[in-house]
Amino acid sequence: MTAGPFGNLPRRVRVRDMTLRDGLQSLPQVLPLAVKLELYEALAKANVTDFQVTSFMNPARVPQLADAEGLWQALAGRPGRRDVLIANPRGLDRAIAANAREVETVISASAAYNLKNTHRSREDSMAEIVAMTKVAHDAGVQFSASVANCFHCFFEGRIDSGLVLDMIGRLTEAGIVEIGLADTTGFATPDAVYELFARARAAHPAVTFGAHLHDTQGRGLANAVAALQAGIDWFDAALAGLGGSPFTPGVGGNLSLEMLVDTLGEMGIATGIDPVLAIKAGKAAARLIGSGGTTPAAA
Amino acid sequence: MTAGPFGNLPRRVRVRDMTLRDGLQSLPQVLPLAVKLELYEALAKANVTDFQVTSFMNPARVPQLADAEGLWQALAGRPGRRDVLIANPRGLDRAIAANAREVETVISASAAYNLKNTHRSREDSMAEIVAMTKVAHDAGVQFSASVANCFHCFFEGRIDSGLVLDMIGRLTEAGIVEIGLADTTGFATPDAVYELFARARAAHPAVTFGAHLHDTQGRGLANAVAALQAGIDWFDAALAGLGGSPFTPGVGGNLSLEMLVDTLGEMGIATGIDPVLAIKAGKAAARLIGSGGTTPAAA
Repeated sequence: MTAGPFGNLPRRVRVRDMTLRDGLQSLPQVLPLAVKLELYEALAKANVTDFQVTSFMNPARVPQLADAEGLWQALAGRPGRRDVLIANPRGLDRAIAANAREVETVISASAAYNLKNTHRSREDSMAEIVAMTKVAHDAGVQFSASVANCFHCFFEGRIDSGLVLDMIGRLTEAGIVEIGLADTTGFATPDAVYELFARARAAHPAVTFGAHLHDTQGRGLANAVAALQAGIDWFDAALAGLGGSPFTPGVGGNLSLEMLVDTLGEMGIATGIDPVLAIKAGKAAARLIGSGGTTPAAA
Repeated sequence: MTAGPFGNLPRRVRVRDMTLRDGLQSLPQVLPLAVKLELYEALAKANVTDFQVTSFMNPARVPQLADAEGLWQALAGRPGRRDVLIANPRGLDRAIAANAREVETVISASAAYNLKNTHRSREDSMAEIVAMTKVAHDAGVQFSASVANCFHCFFEGRIDSGLVLDMIGRLTEAGIVEIGLADTTGFATPDAVYELFARARAAHPAVTFGAHLHDTQGRGLANAVAALQAGIDWFDAALAGLGGSPFTPGVGGNLSLEMLVDTLGEMGIATGIDPVLAIKAGKAAARLIGSGGTTPAAA
């Protein structure tokens, strides 16, 4: 059957691995650089080609990623498309100095969360992003943005999708053409995910939207399928469903990369990633980190 | 938005709890009857009103449910709609003798699985179901059937949906009007779930189809949403995602009842069940059974 809600899904999707950044940033322990390289190696072996590997944040606030420059240099020459996360102009400067070619920043759709997390109003953060976009483009860096708490926030509850669409409009006016929409708390539902992504794509057909979904409530995969139904072909995920937020207690891990890859493969949607090796990497990551992890039983 | 894949979902669904039957039948330990009653109580407190509470099977093969008659009698007078599972005429006789008013039987869409599990060909099993349906109806018992392995089988791999539709046709000819379609191994994908349920409903508009989804690969909720998109308004689930098959190693648990109820509630779909008390019951069940369980973090 080609009609119906599954009749027109993307046939190929980009899966960006978030293990080394989002997967590690709220671990109780700090992983040595050599272990991070091991994880990268296991992912590359499974044919993962797209990574967010670290963030240039204040090392005092995110000690797990304090080795950002060292990791970035250690990865030089290895296969894969790599980007980094930054939260402010200082982080952007560090990323440019480290020679990162793709940089992502983040702003929250929740005023309360944005204030708590960045000590800035949402308006101030937006103005800062506009300025950073110019700095990044002048340095020849591809600059993208992620909107956190697009659906729900522990402080504010449900987030109005109209507000998120307004923010997307502002980001595109600044010249940003890749925008991630994040369910930071994992409380989104598939219907809301479909609606926001469908409206965002309809309003901005030239923008590439990515889905960054957390699995706190066990809805990660169901929400990913809803995004797929809205035509989304870029997903963030992490081995063993690792991750969370260092600033928001109660946030569960990311969508499990190996679960996503395995399911998409069975649906005939290409990711280029080997599901068996991804599951192997997921089990290794969970062992390494001492977590049960969210890894399907078998490929 | 009312258009699109989420524009026409059922507004109310029946959730049948499988904790006491499917949830317990492959546990390493045998739970005392008193503990089973505790689980029932916790479910009833969360306003669960629909239960499959046991199966009348060979106690040597399923010792966990050897107390079927005792449990059935102990539940008499308690609130709730209760049914039991049977696998053959002997089980049906026991169910009728125990005064069960709703009885479900099962047949596998996989020839290999059916033979291994029941020592009968699929044809012989179907003939037996036709005969049992008459016996049940003569006794005034509502008789339903579940088709196992509708999508996948560890012996045969992918199952042809045309074959399942043929079996559904045979069951309806026998006078069965409630049919469960089971992803016994948990290897179904949302597109296949949608397709089978949509085709089954289109072919048999007078039949009520239920979705019985296992979560082995973490796809349970995504598959449930796909069934919902096909108009399905009856779901089986179990506290903490407990369950498996005593006859098929490698089968993961059921769809988590509390995860389903919580997600449906957030989508504005009524189940009548209290999500907070369901999560509480799920955590209690996981503790009782010594399992981590599949329970969302918070309601």
